[in-house]
Amino acid sequence: MNKITILIHCKDRPNIIATVTNFIAKNQGNIVYIDQFVDREQNEFFMRLESEFTENTFNTEDFKASFKLNLAKVFKMKWRIYSSESKPKMALFISKYDHCLYDILGRYNSGELNLEIPFIISNHKDLKPIADSFKIPFYHIPVTKDTREEAAKKQLSLLEEHGISFIVLARYMQIIPELLIDKFPNKIINIHHSFLPAFIGAKPYHSAYKRGVKIIGATSHYVTEELDGGPIIEQDVTRVTHAHSISDLIAKGRDLEKIVLANAIKLHAERKVMVYNNKTVIFS
Amino acid sequence: MNKITILIHCKDRPNIIATVTNFIAKNQGNIVYIDQFVDREQNEFFMRLESEFTENTFNTEDFKASFKLNLAKVFKMKWRIYSSESKPKMALFISKYDHCLYDILGRYNSGELNLEIPFIISNHKDLKPIADSFKIPFYHIPVTKDTREEAAKKQLSLLEEHGISFIVLARYMQIIPELLIDKFPNKIINIHHSFLPAFIGAKPYHSAYKRGVKIIGATSHYVTEELDGGPIIEQDVTRVTHAHSISDLIAKGRDLEKIVLANAIKLHAERKVMVYNNKTVIFS
Amino acid sequence: MNKITILIHCKDRPNIIATVTNFIAKNQGNIVYIDQFVDREQNEFFMRLESEFTENTFNTEDFKASFKLNLAKVFKMKWRIYSSESKPKMALFISKYDHCLYDILGRYNSGELNLEIPFIISNHKDLKPIADSFKIPFYHIPVTKDTREEAAKKQLSLLEEHGISFIVLARYMQIIPELLIDKFPNKIINIHHSFLPAFIGAKPYHSAYKRGVKIIGATSHYVTEELDGGPIIEQDVTRVTHAHSISDLIAKGRDLEKIVLANAIKLHAERKVMVYNNKTVIFS
Amino acid sequence: MNKITILIHCKDRPNIIATVTNFIAKNQGNIVYIDQFVDREQNEFFMRLESEFTENTFNTEDFKASFKLNLAKVFKMKWRIYSSESKPKMALFISKYDHCLYDILGRYNSGELNLEIPFIISNHKDLKPIADSFKIPFYHIPVTKDTREEAAKKQLSLLEEHGISFIVLARYMQIIPELLIDKFPNKIINIHHSFLPAFIGAKPYHSAYKRGVKIIGATSHYVTEELDGGPIIEQDVTRVTHAHSISDLIAKGRDLEKIVLANAIKLHAERKVMVYNNKTVIFS
Repeated sequence: MNKITILIHCKDRPNIIATVTNFIAKNQGNIVYIDQFVDREQNEFFMRLESEFTENTFNTEDFKASFKLNLAKVFKMKWRIYSSESKPKMALFISKYDHCLYDILGRYNSGELNLEIPFIISNHKDLKPIADSFKIPFYHIPVTKDTREEAAKKQLSLLEEHGISFIVLARYMQIIPELLIDKFPNKIINIHHSFLPAFIGAKPYHSAYKRGVKIIGATSHYVTEELDGGPIIEQDVTRVTHAHSISDLIAKGRDLEKIVLANAIKLHAERKVMVYNNKTVIFS
Repeated sequence: MNKITILIHCKDRPNIIATVTNFIAKNQGNIVYIDQFVDREQNEFFMRLESEFTENTFNTEDFKASFKLNLAKVFKMKWRIYSSESKPKMALFISKYDHCLYDILGRYNSGELNLEIPFIISNHKDLKPIADSFKIPFYHIPVTKDTREEAAKKQLSLLEEHGISFIVLARYMQIIPELLIDKFPNKIINIHHSFLPAFIGAKPYHSAYKRGVKIIGATSHYVTEELDGGPIIEQDVTRVTHAHSISDLIAKGRDLEKIVLANAIKLHAERKVMVYNNKTVIFS
Repeated sequence: MNKITILIHCKDRPNIIATVTNFIAKNQGNIVYIDQFVDREQNEFFMRLESEFTENTFNTEDFKASFKLNLAKVFKMKWRIYSSESKPKMALFISKYDHCLYDILGRYNSGELNLEIPFIISNHKDLKPIADSFKIPFYHIPVTKDTREEAAKKQLSLLEEHGISFIVLARYMQIIPELLIDKFPNKIINIHHSFLPAFIGAKPYHSAYKRGVKIIGATSHYVTEELDGGPIIEQDVTRVTHAHSISDLIAKGRDLEKIVLANAIKLHAERKVMVYNNKTVIFS
Repeated sequence: MNKITILIHCKDRPNIIATVTNFIAKNQGNIVYIDQFVDREQNEFFMRLESEFTENTFNTEDFKASFKLNLAKVFKMKWRIYSSESKPKMALFISKYDHCLYDILGRYNSGELNLEIPFIISNHKDLKPIADSFKIPFYHIPVTKDTREEAAKKQLSLLEEHGISFIVLARYMQIIPELLIDKFPNKIINIHHSFLPAFIGAKPYHSAYKRGVKIIGATSHYVTEELDGGPIIEQDVTRVTHAHSISDLIAKGRDLEKIVLANAIKLHAERKVMVYNNKTVIFS
């Protein structure tokens, strides 16, 4: 049996849902999940749909071609169709912090994440032993101001060689060059250690401490060229008091960062995120 | 323009979604919201759908008749169709606590609740001045052990006379007799001041204090014949510490009760709740 | 029996706690609550203490004089001593939004707030009927750009006449002139409808919607001359999704605003807040 | 410099705080933290105090002896005094679930936990490789119905040999025999995967699913002879919906279990927990 996921985005107009569901029925498909959202202010239509096809004659490529011709062109859709058999391939970029790395690899090991991790890239060698203990290839690509472009090319070459679908910056702590952002639009996930848009940039826990906030947060977002300005995928917060020092905030924040990043990874890997106007639509 | 909301529940089988959306398209309807849920363990299918009909010739009763004949019978559906024009009518049952009453009437006054409140019933006269200040008719129906049945008949007569759709027990503190439960199945909303199923019955804050829990909660549920055992609509919680006395728990709990009950009322009034197997499906 | 609350702030140095507790013991006082906090980075010491005095000969003014001479001067303390008998007097400033007003007056009526509300001031007449139904004097003082100074003088005259301890801006929506801020330093409580420091200024829900955040918040803070920049007393947040419109955010935010403002009022009225470096120390 | 932590529990009566702080001042100690709690219903007094002693002549054992004679006997205190130099020794009991183990060892490795882990005990060999990769001795002690007593003796012998201060059951899944509970009263920390007292016993996620709750939780508590009935140290919760299957609840619950257990471990290791009447007092 084949199972596919369809994501659709177009201008809203009557009968999109009926037309699409009808098209699937005609192709002997059975819809097992459907959810849609209309941004009434912008008049934008979004839909996520999962469908099963039991016929032996079903062919994903043929279906895609027919979908494109009969639906996508007519409704001027942006669309994506994924087979549930193809797991997305995720590249992990890390630096020296290990908490998100342990968390992601622990989940990966226990089968919680429906994806593959072909390799890990780091600008430092410190965490190689962790990659080794989880038996995941580790590439050390140092980055300095002068070598940023060169490093990006090495990274890109590895990403393309392994057919990587998306990148996760697990506290990578480096600016991502345009070269990579352009090749992976809305496919690079960062974890920022504040409740964005508060405390953009470096040392957000220090800023939060100074401002005397009573709640701190973490934000996972897609990387765009604007620093910490990309579409927000997931956020979470926790309470703090005057008695928490900066290092307490950092320790409490680590737990937030792990959970928020893990949730964003799951949403992306399960193809539940759509992006427009620098915002995300998240299907449940 | 007509706008209707359709709720469907039946055994899961292929093509329900396509068939229903197709039926609506043939009736010149435009689907503006669709959400569905399949309980795979029980093989039960649930759908909620909102559709607009712009044709002058559209008639809700004709549509219902056709829906029943062409869809409901074929798929053996339980179904409900509501016109968005008809607001549900809610009866408020209260006793001596005023916090939920103030909260509900404040929201009602500000237009936040899409419903009508034809009257308030209480077994005590204490809160009549509040009903008066919001200009809502107030009926005092005392209840004793001996008069419970008689009181229920008076209540029922008022409920029927005003065409009440559902009842809200805003800390009513009385057992609801079978007579009313049978007439309003999954249409009587209670607020219980604990995180059910913990601390069923009377004095849950006292029990929570005694057990030394670190979090207390409130639960809104439909009333069934099993005490505090009906389908849960909404829950929320808040942190407490060893330093909170029972009266602190009661004070903190009041804020929970208000919000949880208000949310449950909104979900019910907007026809977003379906019930099966003593559980709720809540559409967003 | 006399009960007093003592708040102390000074540079940290050895033996403050022992000296203070000893002083109270010598005055036949029994300490029933003590909590302290040291900001190690700034070397600042804060303490809150409640003590009971059963001797008939106890006199609060004498105690204050002795405290000043024997402790405050020696340790160069900023200090405040309150008798538990004197309830703080709170002035309510409102405009046209009624949700915080209903919430505060409902709590006031039920005895939840340990304070007095001598009067309500508004720049509009719209909410006078609510003040009337709770039997609280209502003063209509219109404010325009040209009359701001004059209005402030009228307000100040009322505040002084009634011996007001602190002011609560329950969605007052007007800039507070320096004149009032200077007379009530860290004694004017505002509720801002965002998770500060995100979305300072007007229309924060619109900004939150545009940025696509997944969590919205509300913040209660003391008013200083920097817009929305004063010491934060309390914050809370709630989840939102892409499917929430701006008006949904506003409705969800109202519930946050009510709870956050009510909590800030309680903390202030119970003398649990101390301010330094534009931050608050909140004793439990 | 010496730093000690003092925990005191006795019947409430006047002047305890002044007497204790005075005693410390006389011993040339400087109090750097003090917090107290009085259960007014039961008339029980609790205090936690940290004090620094800079004199070279300070001797912890002498101080303890003097404290016992001059304070503890007079006030009939239960008391404990810890030197900050002596880290508590924690034994980890595990079975086949690895998520809490990874989480604890990750935190341990990064220096977040102020304790030592001399060894890990498991009734299965499955997780030995994880213990190995963190270089912590691993003892495999199988447990069957018939060998429970014998296994407990082996465990006890290891615990005593290493001078273990407290035990953590990181999803150990076995009943702890009286023998161990008696030797480690309020020193065995369990993580239960429900919001206790709801869903006591086995398979709480299945029960939560069946009851249709909208929030699930996890609870860390001390082990007593009553199943899941011991004093609660920490709890946390997360929202779920009708669309979450049992395996979704289990996955979401794992994140709760990790955080709740880690917090309980930290509170215990930092000597911030006191127990009475089957409840905990948690100092901040």
